[in-house]
Amino acid sequence: MSSLFVRTLRDDPADAEVPSHRWLVRAGYIRRVAPGIYSWLPLGLKVLQKVETIVREEMDAIGAQEVHFPALLPREPYEDTNRWTEYGDNLFRLKDRKGADLLLGPTHEEMFTLMVKDLYSSYKDLPLALYQVQNKYRDEARPRAGILRGREFVMKDSYSFDIDDAGLEASYQKHREAYIKIFDRLGFDYVIVQAMAGAMGGSKSEEFLAVAANGEDTFVRSPGGYAANVEAVRIAAPAAVDYADAPAAHAENTPDSETIETLVTLLNKDFPRTDREWTGADTLKNVVFKLVHPDGKQEVLAIGLPGDRAVDEKRLEAAVEPAEVVAFTDEDFAANPILKKGYIGPEVLGEDSASKVRYLCDPRVVSGTRWVTGANQPGHHVIDLVCGRDFTPDGVIDVAEVREGDPAPDGSGPLTLARGIEMGHIFQLGRKYAESLGLKVLDQNGKLVTVTMGSYGVGVSRAVAAVAEGTCDEKGLCWPRSLAPFDVEIVATGKGEEVFAAAEKLANELDEAGVAVLYDDRKASPGVKFADTEILGMPTAVVIGRDLANGLVEIRDRKSGEKRSVAVGEALAEVLKEIHGSDA
Amino acid sequence: MSSLFVRTLRDDPADAEVPSHRWLVRAGYIRRVAPGIYSWLPLGLKVLQKVETIVREEMDAIGAQEVHFPALLPREPYEDTNRWTEYGDNLFRLKDRKGADLLLGPTHEEMFTLMVKDLYSSYKDLPLALYQVQNKYRDEARPRAGILRGREFVMKDSYSFDIDDAGLEASYQKHREAYIKIFDRLGFDYVIVQAMAGAMGGSKSEEFLAVAANGEDTFVRSPGGYAANVEAVRIAAPAAVDYADAPAAHAENTPDSETIETLVTLLNKDFPRTDREWTGADTLKNVVFKLVHPDGKQEVLAIGLPGDRAVDEKRLEAAVEPAEVVAFTDEDFAANPILKKGYIGPEVLGEDSASKVRYLCDPRVVSGTRWVTGANQPGHHVIDLVCGRDFTPDGVIDVAEVREGDPAPDGSGPLTLARGIEMGHIFQLGRKYAESLGLKVLDQNGKLVTVTMGSYGVGVSRAVAAVAEGTCDEKGLCWPRSLAPFDVEIVATGKGEEVFAAAEKLANELDEAGVAVLYDDRKASPGVKFADTEILGMPTAVVIGRDLANGLVEIRDRKSGEKRSVAVGEALAEVLKEIHGSDA
Repeated sequence: MSSLFVRTLRDDPADAEVPSHRWLVRAGYIRRVAPGIYSWLPLGLKVLQKVETIVREEMDAIGAQEVHFPALLPREPYEDTNRWTEYGDNLFRLKDRKGADLLLGPTHEEMFTLMVKDLYSSYKDLPLALYQVQNKYRDEARPRAGILRGREFVMKDSYSFDIDDAGLEASYQKHREAYIKIFDRLGFDYVIVQAMAGAMGGSKSEEFLAVAANGEDTFVRSPGGYAANVEAVRIAAPAAVDYADAPAAHAENTPDSETIETLVTLLNKDFPRTDREWTGADTLKNVVFKLVHPDGKQEVLAIGLPGDRAVDEKRLEAAVEPAEVVAFTDEDFAANPILKKGYIGPEVLGEDSASKVRYLCDPRVVSGTRWVTGANQPGHHVIDLVCGRDFTPDGVIDVAEVREGDPAPDGSGPLTLARGIEMGHIFQLGRKYAESLGLKVLDQNGKLVTVTMGSYGVGVSRAVAAVAEGTCDEKGLCWPRSLAPFDVEIVATGKGEEVFAAAEKLANELDEAGVAVLYDDRKASPGVKFADTEILGMPTAVVIGRDLANGLVEIRDRKSGEKRSVAVGEALAEVLKEIHGSDA
Repeated sequence: MSSLFVRTLRDDPADAEVPSHRWLVRAGYIRRVAPGIYSWLPLGLKVLQKVETIVREEMDAIGAQEVHFPALLPREPYEDTNRWTEYGDNLFRLKDRKGADLLLGPTHEEMFTLMVKDLYSSYKDLPLALYQVQNKYRDEARPRAGILRGREFVMKDSYSFDIDDAGLEASYQKHREAYIKIFDRLGFDYVIVQAMAGAMGGSKSEEFLAVAANGEDTFVRSPGGYAANVEAVRIAAPAAVDYADAPAAHAENTPDSETIETLVTLLNKDFPRTDREWTGADTLKNVVFKLVHPDGKQEVLAIGLPGDRAVDEKRLEAAVEPAEVVAFTDEDFAANPILKKGYIGPEVLGEDSASKVRYLCDPRVVSGTRWVTGANQPGHHVIDLVCGRDFTPDGVIDVAEVREGDPAPDGSGPLTLARGIEMGHIFQLGRKYAESLGLKVLDQNGKLVTVTMGSYGVGVSRAVAAVAEGTCDEKGLCWPRSLAPFDVEIVATGKGEEVFAAAEKLANELDEAGVAVLYDDRKASPGVKFADTEILGMPTAVVIGRDLANGLVEIRDRKSGEKRSVAVGEALAEVLKEIHGSDA
């Protein structure tokens, strides 16, 4: 400890948004270099390397072969798949001394596809799975929570190559099993949820989320086993309603009713229903956004949804990717006088309408549903406007907030919401990249067929933070045995030479037994040493101090806080038991 | 082998400049992605990882602690040391989405200095040695020979921190010993030579060069043990000469004598010496270059040197670093009419002269030496121009070519020249970086003192190419046991099931014995398989084929080409003997 390159800090770092980040910095595991860019100190690097080892072992176990691509990449392959543009500001771009365009790889589908195209040509070569453990680069708009969302980060990405869909499904399942083993070994509390494919393209996709109150991702679960990232929830659309008996739509004077709340109050006062009260769910709220497409083109988008629900921005962002969502400002309203803020109705919306604004509605807005909505005139709303009779949206968009208690789309019960950290993501990419880049092989009949691919990622550096987040407490880090930088810390307290001699003897014995020992040999007070022991978070500590005079040392369990005294002669055996379990 | 992601190529790659590169590509170890940017296939990555392991073990053995810095770095620290500018076009620079300047780290002195400043504050914390194994980036003007000189490459860089010069010397020697162990284990034929510190700054510095005919570096050696990179050779200046008896300088008509050769011929014809013939060494050649400084400023530089020697451009580049050297063109002569091409003499050179051109001379041009040199008038030269009497250079520059047979500067005998590949470089940096970045600690007396640093590099990815270059032959790669991706290749030939069964059995037995086996189970012809075995270059091969019917298999040594038949029942023991030596 006296020579280990580490210093614990008394104060939280300025950017400590989440506990894991606070403790990783205070315990001297990582240091910030720039926003979203971190250095690994010796203790942090040991944890990172342990994660890498676990990931490599499980990848090797399913026959995936390790390769390594550059992080600095030429533009052309990413141009061929359009991702040079689609990645937008998230891509770090640069030019070399000759003016050639380069990028820092955010993910390597293109490079793997081209490598396989370079080497392979026959169905006999497949299936194939390749992986790498590598630095990735994404110029995040909001780098966050230290290494949880960095701009340079370590990822394991792997790719499968198959001749047909059945092969892809098998490769996908192999990776899924490997991921379960990886996250079990890392000691996570995790869930597997349905996910959006996002910028990757492709179809079937699942995420492995570490359950964490500070997680960036929200997911839903039902008692019947449905689980999905909230962005991937596709609500079950209700059946169409017969509207033969519906009265004609009628515009009414509804002064000062720009919000759903004021509108519902006014409706119940001035236009009471006979069957029940009006609620927000009877109103059709039309919300306007601007989309900025990767090529810079701007588009106005109107979204219609039941007035009791807000648009979930993350679901919206995921739904319109790679376009970016920008707020529709008062200036934008001024520039589009046909859109009356607070009173927008379907009449002026749609690609064929006067505004030409694309109009997408929530899946609940099915044919025959009746709505109270804006009359495109300040202080006026229309009542009994019927979808399919009085208006027809350009399409469906499923971006309304998902709420606790909503029914699961598959009928498996009411949803509960929770938060998580995305630790792994598995995709059935399909033929998108192989088609763009011309990866074909000869099949059994000598015919060229396009290969189908899967893409699989594990956030390796993020896993360090996610495990820390899931295990730390109010005193510091608290590592599971699988990832702790050292198996045990030996703390010598007091000034007696015999204490340090006994501590060093035990350290040497444990070292010889193959145990990774951190020996706190510093001439510091017991208080300082104990506080550091708790901040650093090794699973087991042995305290050798005053009680040595009585032939006793203390074994502490960092997680439970349990302390027990054992005879100094038994210490070696007792520590080995702690580490290897009672059978050792 | 049938599932290994590898394909051997029959033809050389287009950019095959050196044998190692040709074979690494043809054997499917690496692939080019862009100029100077390569991917590692499974076999290549295994070799790279073995080099990394050896380097880590030897660094750990001297108590250096591993850390890991980002490759993507902020501008500011490199601004503080002026390297943001000094690196010129060699630095990859980019901006993030907010317009902040970033760079891809070419080396990390700044970051390590700041990290130690962040954590440490007392002499008690020192000495300290930190290292990382990391991707580095340099936008080389001429990326060359595959991974020998790439633009993205893996380097081990370490840094030592000491309170005083004696500490630095001790840290330097520890690294030097560790490097000797590393390069011994890698199986190099290497030399340790004196080196220039170059852009790193600092004083004492040595390079570890792998001896290689295709190496980029030229080094000299003497029988008495002098060894230096040719750029670092500092020739011993002769003693000053008494010029009391020297005749006055006299200009003479020397038509058509723009080159040294024509001048010497003319001198011997028109102005013969009585004691001996004129030679090129009697003439003072004045060569003009342009320097481009990192800030873009241009400067004309004149170099005077004995006419029988050329300026060595690499020595010149090293001497003027970080300025770049550019040729002085006819246009430049036209713009500087005072400089008469082919007839430039010292009279018009020097910062105090009419031209104001800085004038540096070879160390041999000492006071009292007499020269024939240009008279600054076409067709005219001056004879008996005496240094120190008739002209005084602005300073000394030691950039003349070093020749086979030149005396070693330390008097240890005549020099021989050879070529090598720079594999390691150790520097005594001193206090340059610590001063620029304010790394000070309290000494024993409570006084703040600036820390002194060393910087030590190993080209990890380059080592793969350098070992390949030193060991490959006309048939392919030929790995030493320490780096081979597999210990042994088993080749089953023919179609008999019993051949494949015996091969698989041996492969399994070796695997269980902890041997890394590549089993060529392909249904290919023996010719194809044998050729691949030689290209791939595992140190030992076992051929199981027709002779199995007689109970025999063949063991081949890749390096010597020796083949010997052994009984199939002895194969396991014999192979283990090959791998572990006869004692195993």
